[in-house]
Amino acid sequence: MYKLVLIRHGESTWNLENRFTGWTDVDLTPTGVEQAKQAGRLLKAEGYDFDVAYTSVLTRAIRTLHLALDEMDRLWLPTVKHWRLNERHYGALQGLNKAETAQKHGDAQVLVWRRSYDTPPPALEPTDPRSERGDPRYARLQPGEVPLTECLKDTVARVLPFWNESMAPAILAGKRIVVSAHGNSIRALVKYLDNISETDIVELNIPNGIPLVYELDAGLKPIRSYYLGDAEAAAKAAAAVASQGKA
Amino acid sequence: MYKLVLIRHGESTWNLENRFTGWTDVDLTPTGVEQAKQAGRLLKAEGYDFDVAYTSVLTRAIRTLHLALDEMDRLWLPTVKHWRLNERHYGALQGLNKAETAQKHGDAQVLVWRRSYDTPPPALEPTDPRSERGDPRYARLQPGEVPLTECLKDTVARVLPFWNESMAPAILAGKRIVVSAHGNSIRALVKYLDNISETDIVELNIPNGIPLVYELDAGLKPIRSYYLGDAEAAAKAAAAVASQGKA
Repeated sequence: MYKLVLIRHGESTWNLENRFTGWTDVDLTPTGVEQAKQAGRLLKAEGYDFDVAYTSVLTRAIRTLHLALDEMDRLWLPTVKHWRLNERHYGALQGLNKAETAQKHGDAQVLVWRRSYDTPPPALEPTDPRSERGDPRYARLQPGEVPLTECLKDTVARVLPFWNESMAPAILAGKRIVVSAHGNSIRALVKYLDNISETDIVELNIPNGIPLVYELDAGLKPIRSYYLGDAEAAAKAAAAVASQGKA
Repeated sequence: MYKLVLIRHGESTWNLENRFTGWTDVDLTPTGVEQAKQAGRLLKAEGYDFDVAYTSVLTRAIRTLHLALDEMDRLWLPTVKHWRLNERHYGALQGLNKAETAQKHGDAQVLVWRRSYDTPPPALEPTDPRSERGDPRYARLQPGEVPLTECLKDTVARVLPFWNESMAPAILAGKRIVVSAHGNSIRALVKYLDNISETDIVELNIPNGIPLVYELDAGLKPIRSYYLGDAEAAAKAAAAVASQGKA
């Protein structure tokens, strides 16, 4: 049996301000820092250890990983940073307040943008200063690989090649891996692993900073999955995520 | 012309306590943290940027790198952590106070242990609790690769394969690299790059947390090298390193 641990980054400044974040590179809040450390302490206390760590190329996920690994005395772990683990790109909504956007466009429209499987939010103009044009971390990507908006279907489509080419082979090679990523890149993985329907994935929310453990069989099919620590707290935190887009 | 930037980690707790450190995994002091941040601010202010970062697997070098890259908004840089960049192994001296050791064995003996090119300090017993036996970061190394003591010649011998197989090819492929490492793994690189004799390398000291820039020609031969920032401060810091082993 294999184990895989997924961690959504700790609370970010734009989680706190209730803004659509996407690929905007905001940092953790002091609460987010504490959540990340707590994730590391919990993993250590529960006897978890890892051979390789994965993270997106966004600061809030990288910092979460570093803080958690530091608590585990595992800052030295080989770490793979990859843009395919980035948060879903939120297009022209990036930077906007979720509740204000809901007041303007209605709860239903915002729920579609937040959670519809295949309807992306309005795209950023390529010339929008919020776009990733000129950001050196994406300079070597192929044209078209840097999104201007994404629905979850798009996120799944760019996360899965990385799962198939890097993470799954590492797990099958016996590496114990931990992944620090984002609400929607983790939802993309969870949808694939648990074979969740396009309808049901809408209802699934990932809380910040609570390690999500998958036990996988020899074919990497989930045997079971669970949040580490206080299950009730995890459920409450996930419900809070769900309510963020309401006016 | 290529550029290579080497940074010795910021002041560690055992630098402050004037103890022989070697592979012991001590952390930075608050001063060391500030030195690391200052290195990042200086690199950013001077317009330096990088494509790949290298560090040892010791916390003080990793943390120095993370702090410096954070100041440069480059926490997302691909980072290679390798044991071959570790500090020289100090054998049975690890943990001992340098001045007390000099009082006991004499300045001359301590200078030999600290700086002789080919006389290693007394070796650790393999069963010594200070040895790396059982440390998971070295678990995949070949028998004999984890030292029980090293002279600088030994350090050169294990740093150079990594230079030749990883760092030099990266530089020749056009990658701008920054290396966060240790007094003696950096001395090993400097000895090789500048073709310094076994006699002269004894006098060379690397200050904590000051970026050392090498400009290299197409064959990776140094054109010139210099410390960033205040040259006088760098010279003073290097002289302080030299005097640590005196009674």
